[in-house]
Amino acid sequence: MEISSFLTSFGSYLAIFVVLMLLFIWLSGRPGNEVVYYPSRVVKGLDPHEGRPKTFNPFSWIREAVGASEDEVIAMAGVDAAVYLVFLGTALGILVLSGLVLLPVLLPVARTDNNLALSKNITFNDLDKLSMGNIKEKSPRLWGFLLATYWVSFVTFYVLWRAYSHVSNLRATAKASSEVKPQDVALLVRDIPPVPKGQTRKEQVDDYFRNLHPDTFYRSMVITDNTQANKIWEELEGYRKKLVRAEVVFSGSKTAAKPEGQRPMNRTGFLGLVGKKVDTINFCNEKIKELEPKLEAEQKVTLREKQQNAAVVVFNSMSAAVAATQTLHAQLVDTWTVSEAPEPRQLLWYNLPKRFFERKVRSLIVYVIVFLAVVFYMVPITFISAFTTLANLKKYLPFIKSVVDIPAVKSVLEAYLPQIALIVFMALLPKFLLFLSRAEGIASESHVVRAASGKFFYFIIFNVFLGVTIGSTLFASFKEIEKKPNSIVPLLGSSLPKSATFFLTFVALKFFVGYGLELSRVIPLIIYRLKRRFLCKTEGEIKQAWAPGALGYATKVPNDMLIVTIVLCYSVIAPLIIPFGVLYFGLGWLVFRNQALKVYIPEYESYGRMWPHIHTRMIAALIIYQVTMFGYFGVKKFVYAPFMLPLPVLSFAFAFICNARFYKAFDRVPLEVAASHKAKQTPNLEALFSAYIPPCLNSGDKFDDADQFEDARSQPASRTTSFA
Amino acid sequence: MEISSFLTSFGSYLAIFVVLMLLFIWLSGRPGNEVVYYPSRVVKGLDPHEGRPKTFNPFSWIREAVGASEDEVIAMAGVDAAVYLVFLGTALGILVLSGLVLLPVLLPVARTDNNLALSKNITFNDLDKLSMGNIKEKSPRLWGFLLATYWVSFVTFYVLWRAYSHVSNLRATAKASSEVKPQDVALLVRDIPPVPKGQTRKEQVDDYFRNLHPDTFYRSMVITDNTQANKIWEELEGYRKKLVRAEVVFSGSKTAAKPEGQRPMNRTGFLGLVGKKVDTINFCNEKIKELEPKLEAEQKVTLREKQQNAAVVVFNSMSAAVAATQTLHAQLVDTWTVSEAPEPRQLLWYNLPKRFFERKVRSLIVYVIVFLAVVFYMVPITFISAFTTLANLKKYLPFIKSVVDIPAVKSVLEAYLPQIALIVFMALLPKFLLFLSRAEGIASESHVVRAASGKFFYFIIFNVFLGVTIGSTLFASFKEIEKKPNSIVPLLGSSLPKSATFFLTFVALKFFVGYGLELSRVIPLIIYRLKRRFLCKTEGEIKQAWAPGALGYATKVPNDMLIVTIVLCYSVIAPLIIPFGVLYFGLGWLVFRNQALKVYIPEYESYGRMWPHIHTRMIAALIIYQVTMFGYFGVKKFVYAPFMLPLPVLSFAFAFICNARFYKAFDRVPLEVAASHKAKQTPNLEALFSAYIPPCLNSGDKFDDADQFEDARSQPASRTTSFA
Repeated sequence: MEISSFLTSFGSYLAIFVVLMLLFIWLSGRPGNEVVYYPSRVVKGLDPHEGRPKTFNPFSWIREAVGASEDEVIAMAGVDAAVYLVFLGTALGILVLSGLVLLPVLLPVARTDNNLALSKNITFNDLDKLSMGNIKEKSPRLWGFLLATYWVSFVTFYVLWRAYSHVSNLRATAKASSEVKPQDVALLVRDIPPVPKGQTRKEQVDDYFRNLHPDTFYRSMVITDNTQANKIWEELEGYRKKLVRAEVVFSGSKTAAKPEGQRPMNRTGFLGLVGKKVDTINFCNEKIKELEPKLEAEQKVTLREKQQNAAVVVFNSMSAAVAATQTLHAQLVDTWTVSEAPEPRQLLWYNLPKRFFERKVRSLIVYVIVFLAVVFYMVPITFISAFTTLANLKKYLPFIKSVVDIPAVKSVLEAYLPQIALIVFMALLPKFLLFLSRAEGIASESHVVRAASGKFFYFIIFNVFLGVTIGSTLFASFKEIEKKPNSIVPLLGSSLPKSATFFLTFVALKFFVGYGLELSRVIPLIIYRLKRRFLCKTEGEIKQAWAPGALGYATKVPNDMLIVTIVLCYSVIAPLIIPFGVLYFGLGWLVFRNQALKVYIPEYESYGRMWPHIHTRMIAALIIYQVTMFGYFGVKKFVYAPFMLPLPVLSFAFAFICNARFYKAFDRVPLEVAASHKAKQTPNLEALFSAYIPPCLNSGDKFDDADQFEDARSQPASRTTSFA
Repeated sequence: MEISSFLTSFGSYLAIFVVLMLLFIWLSGRPGNEVVYYPSRVVKGLDPHEGRPKTFNPFSWIREAVGASEDEVIAMAGVDAAVYLVFLGTALGILVLSGLVLLPVLLPVARTDNNLALSKNITFNDLDKLSMGNIKEKSPRLWGFLLATYWVSFVTFYVLWRAYSHVSNLRATAKASSEVKPQDVALLVRDIPPVPKGQTRKEQVDDYFRNLHPDTFYRSMVITDNTQANKIWEELEGYRKKLVRAEVVFSGSKTAAKPEGQRPMNRTGFLGLVGKKVDTINFCNEKIKELEPKLEAEQKVTLREKQQNAAVVVFNSMSAAVAATQTLHAQLVDTWTVSEAPEPRQLLWYNLPKRFFERKVRSLIVYVIVFLAVVFYMVPITFISAFTTLANLKKYLPFIKSVVDIPAVKSVLEAYLPQIALIVFMALLPKFLLFLSRAEGIASESHVVRAASGKFFYFIIFNVFLGVTIGSTLFASFKEIEKKPNSIVPLLGSSLPKSATFFLTFVALKFFVGYGLELSRVIPLIIYRLKRRFLCKTEGEIKQAWAPGALGYATKVPNDMLIVTIVLCYSVIAPLIIPFGVLYFGLGWLVFRNQALKVYIPEYESYGRMWPHIHTRMIAALIIYQVTMFGYFGVKKFVYAPFMLPLPVLSFAFAFICNARFYKAFDRVPLEVAASHKAKQTPNLEALFSAYIPPCLNSGDKFDDADQFEDARSQPASRTTSFA
């Protein structure tokens, strides 16, 4: 890539960002847009513009984002968002501390050497002169780069250690200080053995837990197969919504001119296009009347006959639930397996009845699929990164030649094409990985997200990072390699700094355009406006139109991880990448602080359970960096390259120590944390228990005491002490 | 090795065994020998000859050993001994089931081929003709051997699965049915953080656990540094024993002729050889009078000022202790680490205060040492196994030539030398490994034994098994390899069956001589007789002289494991080894059943905690066998050798499934098991608690309530509910 095309892309990205930010400042102040720019505040019933000065200040959002305390972030968006911000801050910290030393030291050292000018058969640009590629082989200047590698590593250790401590405290404090949640007093038991003769599943579960926890057992809820009930319930809800909508339309049609209005009609057939034409209000009322008893009957059948081999068990205190969750219950470890109960809203019901070894086999199969996918995705990725150069496009698609030969178009295409191809490609993956992770039989949504995020990380590292670096080299110089097979090592060495320019543009695209779009929320705004004008009739429909959704950690974290890996790996080879990394994480931190405070509404709360996952992958990135550097020093024929070898060992030791000191408290709840709840008032156990009842089984007050003896839930312990 | 020398060794081993067994039958019936042959019964206060018919029957011990139920074994020798017998029985079962198919099928197949007779430059004997070495390359007969490998593997899976189930039940039943032991209601907490200002260590521990377990905490005992107190106590005990002995000597000297007797005298200097001569009784009394207050003062100082960062915490029920043990306590995982409390008798006090990361570093260093030792022990082992062939001995020690050329001596030496060298060598290791394992900072003796046993297993497999097989080949044919370096593969192939003969003799030596000595207890008998005649004066000294000690699992298990590995690996190559393996484990089972019922007194009880360790290593042996066979089929140029590859995969899957189903219940106590105690009467907590007081701190009733506020133990919760 030439310096001009780099500047083209950088300049245009910057322009796009400025335009998007201006749009944001203008649009976010306009009345009626609060629900797009401040939905989180609207949902919480706060004034969207609270605390903002009366005079217009286009950058007040920055002051608000920077000024908010971490506790405010947690209050608005939960611990997970705060931890995600800690992650961005950690990456930022590492890069700032690294850059402070690397930029003033390494750039002059590289610029004043002239390796590239001496080698004839390699094309290079001015940016490449600032990189390690410009250092001569065996040069004593390489000592500076070696020491810089150490500096970056130690900075990473320091910042990561502080971040892990901080997140660990954050988690403990948040868990201890929040009020008691349903998941705090519950555990999830799976793999319940077959029901003994003469007992129901519910009696079996109750007997078992009442026997083992006579003083602390409160109540249990056996997981049922809700497929049928859910289907009826969804149908019913559909008609209810339709009814509300029809009534709104009807009352809207009652104008002064036509006071009786016009009753809305619809066809009953496929998509409302065919079939008999009926009065919608009457039709819906009839359907609802018909479905309600059907649902009720199905609910009874479900509760009585569709009980599965899993249950949620509620205890009368958090300490009791925590201790029970961490205690082995059965002699045969694959029966009565207990685990932390997920939040009710993120419990994946359909996965709960899957048996122990079924889950293991599913995991194994998923791992094999992911492994194959990681390996063979390499093929299209390398193809794309090689194909999407202009020269290749012209060669294979000659008809576009006339267009792309216009200098302006050429420059623009050259600048964007490879990055856009890559981004589109990577956007297709996450859904596939989420599907695979769900198929493993995991019980909670946040765990699925972590699992998918882990898989995505492998994809990104193997395919994007290694794929682009090595693949482009292989493709670009295939003929040279054919001639001299052992020329691959110096070629790789010289292509590493070259790929740096590619990644530089990639990072710039990500932060300027990505964060610009994120901040301005242009796309959600347009969708909301369109929906509101043409589709929405009722309040509920409007609410749904502006619902902001949650921060998608499953793709955000691995994408940021890719940037961390790229910037770390090139930090010493081409230190110029560091300011771009700083911009990426700095801007990201700012934008997502704004979004966390004002926009996104979390779907679940895992109290920073994502952090150990992030931490491990940061260290993995560090080790990739250290190994890459060791290899590159070898390419430079630096005889002191073995001095690099202690670094990966230190990284492993660091990972081990962090893991030993912090990890378990993320995997389980420490008793200390659970016990600090005790001083507060007794929680309302019945309310906490009811939170686990799925909506399709929870309609009104049908579950009174009278038929609780038949359903899948046990009675509260207080009423049945005579049983114990 | 020639067939004659094999028969010589086999015959002489058999003779030795018969002699030793006759000795056993004769000696065990003689009066006065009960304490050597039935010490376990004597200690338990049972009649040694109980249940034995009046008429003399030399084989009644066999009937008794076979007839006893497993419950009787557990009652006499504990679960660990029963599990060790299950291990011997499992190995026996695998070999019997394998042999039933392999011997009638493979021996004729091998005998009727003539590969060995065709190859000129290899010496062989008649036994080798019965081995796989006699099968021609690429012969379709190899299919038989391939199927045999599958048969042995599946037999092993089947028997191991049944054994694991059985042991798992055994452990659960034993734990649930035994009365409550001190370790059942206690937990061990280590890595207690520094004492906060204004608190004592005891208050810190009590506050912490009383806060987290308000309803179930009973009492705690802070671990103290007892070095000084223990030294004084041992000195005191020494004088006390000396006094008793002097009094016995004195009263023994009061004969009718000299009614005043002769007061025993001794010198006070080094070993009683130099220094002033004093009256022993007076001297000891003085010393005791002097030391008693000193000990008392030291005990007070120890309890008050030498409290360490570890404690034993007692709960008021087994369920509470079990749940607390398995629950993470602190947010920082390297503080307040809780673990199962070991039995008081196997608690390693000096290891308890070692801190979390110190233990990790120590483990790491120990692993490095063991790794280096495993690798470099290979050198002397291969040297020994090569050197101790007669030809070499004559070459390097020419002066013995005249002796070893006598045919009888030559034959004997050839038969015994390598095996004896090997056995002596392996006998030196265990103490070293036990020392290393203790240095890791492990809290209990049984865990140390398991750790040492694991290390010993690596030694045995790498050095003895691989060392002898490959080493002897390398040495014996060093010159041939020098000439044709790629001749090593066929040489290895042909040497595998040859080493089989060596191992055949090795196994025979082990079981005939080893079990003969074990059963006859000739050496303990002689030592006891000598001690009794010349040294023992008091009852205590006599008891000490016949104390049988415990079964040494640390060496027994890996040694048996070696036999399992050898026999498995050669089971298909040279099926003739199977009967020897059957004899080894059959005889072993019989002899150790006898010893468990009548002789050994266990030092600790770990409820079969050793089993997962044994199980994993059995599977490791199986995988070594499968890989060896794969390699050997390759040597035989059998094109269907890849059909072997599913076997190791199956073995790994089997190991995983067993681990998932059973392991955790060995690592922890399931709540089911703990809860089954509940029906019984409340345990005497104070007595259970006192069991943890070390003897050097426990003299009389000094620990009354008055000064308990100062010492390292907390008050029972019942008396201090006002604190809670």
